[in-house]
Amino acid sequence: MPKILITRNVGAEAMRLLKATRFELIVNPVDAEPSRAWVLEQIADPDVVAACIMHGQPSDRVDAEFLSHANKNLKVISTFSVGYDHIDVAAANARGIAVGHTPGVLSDAVADLTVMLVLMAMRRVEEGISLVKSGGWPQLPWAPFVMCGPGLGAPNLTIGFLGFGRIAECVVDRLLAFTNKSAPPRVLYTSSRAREDQAEIDAGFSSRWGVDVKRVEKDGLAEADIVIVLCALTPDTEGAVDAALLKKMKKTAVLVNAARGPIVNSDDLNAALDEGEIFGAALDVITGEPHIAPDHPLVLNKRCAVLPHMGSADYGTRNAMADLCVRNAIAGAEGRALPAEVRV
Amino acid sequence: MPKILITRNVGAEAMRLLKATRFELIVNPVDAEPSRAWVLEQIADPDVVAACIMHGQPSDRVDAEFLSHANKNLKVISTFSVGYDHIDVAAANARGIAVGHTPGVLSDAVADLTVMLVLMAMRRVEEGISLVKSGGWPQLPWAPFVMCGPGLGAPNLTIGFLGFGRIAECVVDRLLAFTNKSAPPRVLYTSSRAREDQAEIDAGFSSRWGVDVKRVEKDGLAEADIVIVLCALTPDTEGAVDAALLKKMKKTAVLVNAARGPIVNSDDLNAALDEGEIFGAALDVITGEPHIAPDHPLVLNKRCAVLPHMGSADYGTRNAMADLCVRNAIAGAEGRALPAEVRV
Repeated sequence: MPKILITRNVGAEAMRLLKATRFELIVNPVDAEPSRAWVLEQIADPDVVAACIMHGQPSDRVDAEFLSHANKNLKVISTFSVGYDHIDVAAANARGIAVGHTPGVLSDAVADLTVMLVLMAMRRVEEGISLVKSGGWPQLPWAPFVMCGPGLGAPNLTIGFLGFGRIAECVVDRLLAFTNKSAPPRVLYTSSRAREDQAEIDAGFSSRWGVDVKRVEKDGLAEADIVIVLCALTPDTEGAVDAALLKKMKKTAVLVNAARGPIVNSDDLNAALDEGEIFGAALDVITGEPHIAPDHPLVLNKRCAVLPHMGSADYGTRNAMADLCVRNAIAGAEGRALPAEVRV
Repeated sequence: MPKILITRNVGAEAMRLLKATRFELIVNPVDAEPSRAWVLEQIADPDVVAACIMHGQPSDRVDAEFLSHANKNLKVISTFSVGYDHIDVAAANARGIAVGHTPGVLSDAVADLTVMLVLMAMRRVEEGISLVKSGGWPQLPWAPFVMCGPGLGAPNLTIGFLGFGRIAECVVDRLLAFTNKSAPPRVLYTSSRAREDQAEIDAGFSSRWGVDVKRVEKDGLAEADIVIVLCALTPDTEGAVDAALLKKMKKTAVLVNAARGPIVNSDDLNAALDEGEIFGAALDVITGEPHIAPDHPLVLNKRCAVLPHMGSADYGTRNAMADLCVRNAIAGAEGRALPAEVRV
């Protein structure tokens, strides 16, 4: 009987979908990352026609070794993630294996967390929490502007995005519920290159939200009160937020990174915060994660909140990812088109 | 020449308004709380016709002692706060002194922070930050649902408010930008008593937001996925969130307090979090503040974020409070009606 391999229990809802098929299931029996040897052994089983794999498990890396072990009947590899930097898609496709992933379903959860990070950075939440934890609250002297930060309700705010895809659009939807109604914000964003119909695209965005939206080159973001990093990590964007950009930014501006750590240069950000070149920062991602020590300068910096990459971590979202991951596998196993196939 | 006393520099913008008047100014010369003796000495000056005082400075308490020192020409006491529990308003009025305060201008800033607290409680941010600070991130094992929490995008969410004034309405405005569009939330709220036209009031709210809004008794909040405390502290609301209510709540629910500490029983909340009776909490206020030690159970509890009462702490808001405080003082000094007078 043809089999589907699942390298990690993906939750009751998605497992139910799998159990309703005619396929036999091979499920990693422990609730932990399997060994690489176990994965390679299972993938060699000639009955395995589809495999659900996890981005978060290094054991599941789809490289030359993995593909050389894969049996000739394997039709689809479906990853529990949007990103597929752990999969050699071209090599898999060359062997007739389709690759599925889970785009779209994370946008709302990541946008929610991004807006929270904006508020945390503006309103000095890391500093406030640290004050309470260190026992400093009783000694905090009252003053009219003590612990104040810039607010989202300020007039004529400029909101800047490094990268302006689906998640960024969801962030704009949310932020406009907070911003000043009588002196509305404007939105600036970067993209990898200007389109021929750029003016038309920006007019479309502007009319959709009723505020001025405009593509700029990266340096244009220096005018922003809030800079939100939501682009993909590519050779072009690696280190895009560096000392040069941070020095040009407003002293009252905040930086949020909800995309990939290496887009922001950690040393440069820490220096900019210490020297008051920007007001604050909040990061869901950071270069070198998860190997971040408690004495990392940005972890110690009171003007910077560091979260352990939780952008998509809500139950509804992870269940939706599991659902799409499993449906990609079943479709591939049944020889149908994948609901969400990676095209490279 | 008639004088206006200002017990604390309230920022350049508001000080400019004062300097443009015909009044002489007496400003606390240091950027710190003045001594009680200094305040009493100044208020006795027969030329002082108006006084701007601070809620955050115990030296400024308007009690029998203060009023016995006040000269006979004092016309107005204007506090830099909405709350006036530090002022004996009836006694001041009996001596012909009007009392001004700063309502309204804080609503947006507090609502911003409240929405942030909702997201922090749902998305386990305190736990996430603690993990990073303790050096635990490298050892965090990946799993499909690791560090997951309930999300604002879940279908048919129930949002509950203990108290439903202006700030709560601003919170609803914001939360609806996050909630599920195809399976919208409903809103439940308490108020001190049902009105005769309660059905009409609720219909008005429902049509304003396009979601079902309904007044309930306190126990009705047990159906909510999110309970947000935004009522005034009164003998009726003190301890309103107690073990009995917390036990009835959903295990997946979160609690946010952005009003006054004593409305929530801290011991009961800590026990409910430890026993998994609710999912998480986030507090801007806490009983006993600011005298909160680092080993306070709720400060140590990873499912609870504790902030040092920063609800209104954004520059725009504090400047707007200073503006209204100063305009109350000037109006009173000139014998005009106060823009915002406390009526008891």
